Amino acid sequence: MKTDPRAVLLIQCPDRPGLVAAISSFLFAHGANITDLDQHSTDAEPGAYFMRLELQTGGLDVTLDRLRELFELQVARPYAMQWRLDLCSERKKVAVLVSRHDHALLELLWQFQRGDLAADLSLVISNHPDLRAAVEGFGVRFEHVPNDRSQRPQAEARMLELLADADVVVLARYMQIVSEDFAARFQNRLINIHHSFLPAFVGADPYRQAFERGVKIVGATAHYVTAELDAGPIIEQDVARVSHRHAVEDLKALGRDLERRVLARAVRWHCEDRVIVHGNKTVVFA
Amino acid sequence: MKTDPRAVLLIQCPDRPGLVAAISSFLFAHGANITDLDQHSTDAEPGAYFMRLELQTGGLDVTLDRLRELFELQVARPYAMQWRLDLCSERKKVAVLVSRHDHALLELLWQFQRGDLAADLSLVISNHPDLRAAVEGFGVRFEHVPNDRSQRPQAEARMLELLADADVVVLARYMQIVSEDFAARFQNRLINIHHSFLPAFVGADPYRQAFERGVKIVGATAHYVTAELDAGPIIEQDVARVSHRHAVEDLKALGRDLERRVLARAVRWHCEDRVIVHGNKTVVFA
Amino acid sequence: MKTDPRAVLLIQCPDRPGLVAAISSFLFAHGANITDLDQHSTDAEPGAYFMRLELQTGGLDVTLDRLRELFELQVARPYAMQWRLDLCSERKKVAVLVSRHDHALLELLWQFQRGDLAADLSLVISNHPDLRAAVEGFGVRFEHVPNDRSQRPQAEARMLELLADADVVVLARYMQIVSEDFAARFQNRLINIHHSFLPAFVGADPYRQAFERGVKIVGATAHYVTAELDAGPIIEQDVARVSHRHAVEDLKALGRDLERRVLARAVRWHCEDRVIVHGNKTVVFA
Amino acid sequence: MKTDPRAVLLIQCPDRPGLVAAISSFLFAHGANITDLDQHSTDAEPGAYFMRLELQTGGLDVTLDRLRELFELQVARPYAMQWRLDLCSERKKVAVLVSRHDHALLELLWQFQRGDLAADLSLVISNHPDLRAAVEGFGVRFEHVPNDRSQRPQAEARMLELLADADVVVLARYMQIVSEDFAARFQNRLINIHHSFLPAFVGADPYRQAFERGVKIVGATAHYVTAELDAGPIIEQDVARVSHRHAVEDLKALGRDLERRVLARAVRWHCEDRVIVHGNKTVVFA
Repeated sequence: MKTDPRAVLLIQCPDRPGLVAAISSFLFAHGANITDLDQHSTDAEPGAYFMRLELQTGGLDVTLDRLRELFELQVARPYAMQWRLDLCSERKKVAVLVSRHDHALLELLWQFQRGDLAADLSLVISNHPDLRAAVEGFGVRFEHVPNDRSQRPQAEARMLELLADADVVVLARYMQIVSEDFAARFQNRLINIHHSFLPAFVGADPYRQAFERGVKIVGATAHYVTAELDAGPIIEQDVARVSHRHAVEDLKALGRDLERRVLARAVRWHCEDRVIVHGNKTVVFA
Repeated sequence: MKTDPRAVLLIQCPDRPGLVAAISSFLFAHGANITDLDQHSTDAEPGAYFMRLELQTGGLDVTLDRLRELFELQVARPYAMQWRLDLCSERKKVAVLVSRHDHALLELLWQFQRGDLAADLSLVISNHPDLRAAVEGFGVRFEHVPNDRSQRPQAEARMLELLADADVVVLARYMQIVSEDFAARFQNRLINIHHSFLPAFVGADPYRQAFERGVKIVGATAHYVTAELDAGPIIEQDVARVSHRHAVEDLKALGRDLERRVLARAVRWHCEDRVIVHGNKTVVFA
Repeated sequence: MKTDPRAVLLIQCPDRPGLVAAISSFLFAHGANITDLDQHSTDAEPGAYFMRLELQTGGLDVTLDRLRELFELQVARPYAMQWRLDLCSERKKVAVLVSRHDHALLELLWQFQRGDLAADLSLVISNHPDLRAAVEGFGVRFEHVPNDRSQRPQAEARMLELLADADVVVLARYMQIVSEDFAARFQNRLINIHHSFLPAFVGADPYRQAFERGVKIVGATAHYVTAELDAGPIIEQDVARVSHRHAVEDLKALGRDLERRVLARAVRWHCEDRVIVHGNKTVVFA
Repeated sequence: MKTDPRAVLLIQCPDRPGLVAAISSFLFAHGANITDLDQHSTDAEPGAYFMRLELQTGGLDVTLDRLRELFELQVARPYAMQWRLDLCSERKKVAVLVSRHDHALLELLWQFQRGDLAADLSLVISNHPDLRAAVEGFGVRFEHVPNDRSQRPQAEARMLELLADADVVVLARYMQIVSEDFAARFQNRLINIHHSFLPAFVGADPYRQAFERGVKIVGATAHYVTAELDAGPIIEQDVARVSHRHAVEDLKALGRDLERRVLARAVRWHCEDRVIVHGNKTVVFA
């Protein structure tokens, strides 16, 4: 039973005059009241157009499925749109992959528990057994799937079974490489937190790299995972000032705070349908 | 002769279903292509609706004046809108009032000179003669109008003559109180920079107040001036971290940098028609 | 048995020439190696001097108690110092008072569990029973002490019994006023988190006050509690940008993140002997 | 005639017990009153020690030159120190190299004019004639020295003549590569502003690189120039949030503000003897 009549319409198409009129007139004609609207068009030629609408669906004159059919025929096709329309009450299923560092995971569990994350966090998979008690304490299923270079195919096969239902998979400091196939299976639905201000300090031990370069600011980056390591579309970043007084361990401690905040924001925005991937970049209607 | 075909439409009205459709359909029908759109509606009941549109007017099927007439009749009245539609090429005339501190004024002159401020900065009035050379060096008119408690009415009368043409008046560290009448003459067009994070430290010498309170962050606030001192609608604020190491003079030096940035942003947003005043608050489509 | 040979020496005295030489020569003569040193002197006349030293005590030629006696006689008295010298291994006992909001408390429990908080978080007292399971899940004692205006004396008497051992008491969104007597019992050891950028928005419901004032930045403030509400020495503050899009509930959600970070920093600094109170201000050697 | 009796002592040496006592006792014995002290020691083994002291020299019992001799013999040699002791009244001579972008240069000129920069900005050299009037308007000498790949040796030879007196050379958006020899001539005295958050986006057109990577934060970096492009010791960095709404031109405009603030801070700190270079990193006692 759905009690929340809100829906989100996400649109991506070539920019053309009349788009707003076509979309908003269609919705108004069918009783879908717009409560929030955000849009963006790129300066490039030919321009790309992006739109996010929040609708009240309580007054619809047709079913939601019928509205989707009509929208496809009357609006989406003429304007060559990629689009989707989802009820907010159909919450996304989030699964988290983690190794031993618990900070980013705990932040997600906590926000989920408090109701700050509009999604169902239903599964945590780890290549280590350590965090079982912490996860199960939140009433969330925990699965231990050992993984390393030697057993990656079997590990990923097992994880894919477990993730069959997942709408989005979050790498919350998961210290294993995922294969290209795995990444491709969750295209634009696989979110990683990298513990540096990308594209600086790609690869391993970025806090040590940052320490050795002597930067005065460190950062964290949440991004969609693609075949190329640490090079996928960036969703969110944040930074903190540091100085010569910060040893590597201090950077890691500061970084933990950055990582969990940045990842939590990225996951929340994804789950609220606020992120559109365009090439290797994102449009975030936050 | 206008070479820039862009215009901005600003709207404020009670929130009702169909607003976006009505506005966008009207514009599309007359060949006004929407290139940017931002909107906001308050959660309160009854809701208030705010919209800012950037339009290309090159393809209009009527004159801009006729478009305004038609919009008033067909869209604005039915929805009880307050609105205005202005060509970007009709730049606002900005006048600055200043005393002896030059930092906020110089930032504005600099941005104006570089073309970063989409407005005409055509007049600076000061109650001191000190800054004449600096201002005239930018090719901007400077008028010295002595002012203090004893001669306020005469001073303001003289300034009102000088400001007859001004679209917006900026108090860039103008150390004289302005009368209620003066403020009322420029309602929502008189911008002040207050050197604190309002509503903390209202009144005189806010950096000393901040020092004595021992705050760890100082700020600056740009706001529209109303009859009540330092209590008008806030346009923009920014802050900087401080510590026990900062003496009052250090806070002032840090504050100069905050003040000029905050004021420059507020003035730019106002001049680009990005600010709507609603009650004692602002909606800023930045 | 102490395994950590580090100690912290905190000093506060009138500023006079020769202070650094007197202190460092004394310590060197007794084999106390300085590993960190921070100092501050105020510009005011007569100046006040503050110093924080970290020492290695492994090479001392006398016991720590004897070092204290000699320091008092030979250095502290001649320079009229207030001072203390504590081993880092003697961790402070932290007790937390909380009502129903768990975010600030959980952050402290979490940092404590991870070892990021150099202190023993040994007791949580709440005027509501709700958080018992969450607290006990961390292996920390939870006591429910009902409290409201009508039963404050009894409640505080009971809490004082429970807090007999506490070195520092943290109000982590404790929604009851504490009496002047209670505050005086824990002078400079009672830390509160106020959910605004003090001194703006003193008192109840500061996020609503901030919303109504239309500020563009909200904040949180950790301070020592004194007899005057929300007016004690500020230890730490932080802020986040907001806009017209943020409803009161959004400010509260943002604020939760600010509150827990600001309070956790303040508690950590206090527990690491990094904060010296001077008048109504703090010197924080962070 | 010197009226400012303050001096700064900068020290760098291997970390050893007794350093603070040796230095402070020596100074106290000769009547040099310490008014500010900052120090740092690295965690690495063997540790490196850094110290910055501000002294009042009005009560010295010997001349400053004699104090230097005695310090070298009695303190610096036994502890293997690199050090220098300079009167604050002997202001550093700053020369600026610039091409056509004026923002970073103007900020320096402005701070110099206002007295916020404790140095003498005495010379601006440009490979373009455009900024002559702006520079001379501040009463500062301007020299046009054409420079490009084909005439670099002659250009640098001419600049070295002009810079014979300069204590520090600032590249304020100087769009020419400097030779290794030139960089070596001004080792740890040649400051560049790079318009990105290094080490991200090394090389040309970093704002375009940032735009194409889709970062959510852009930055600027002030660093000492070494033989390797954009890889020298970082003095200061700062950042600003951006989004999909920022085109390359918007990033450049935002960046101008970052660049001038970051460069101005780095130059001020250098001129106040607050920066010590250690390997490829800096210790900044700001």
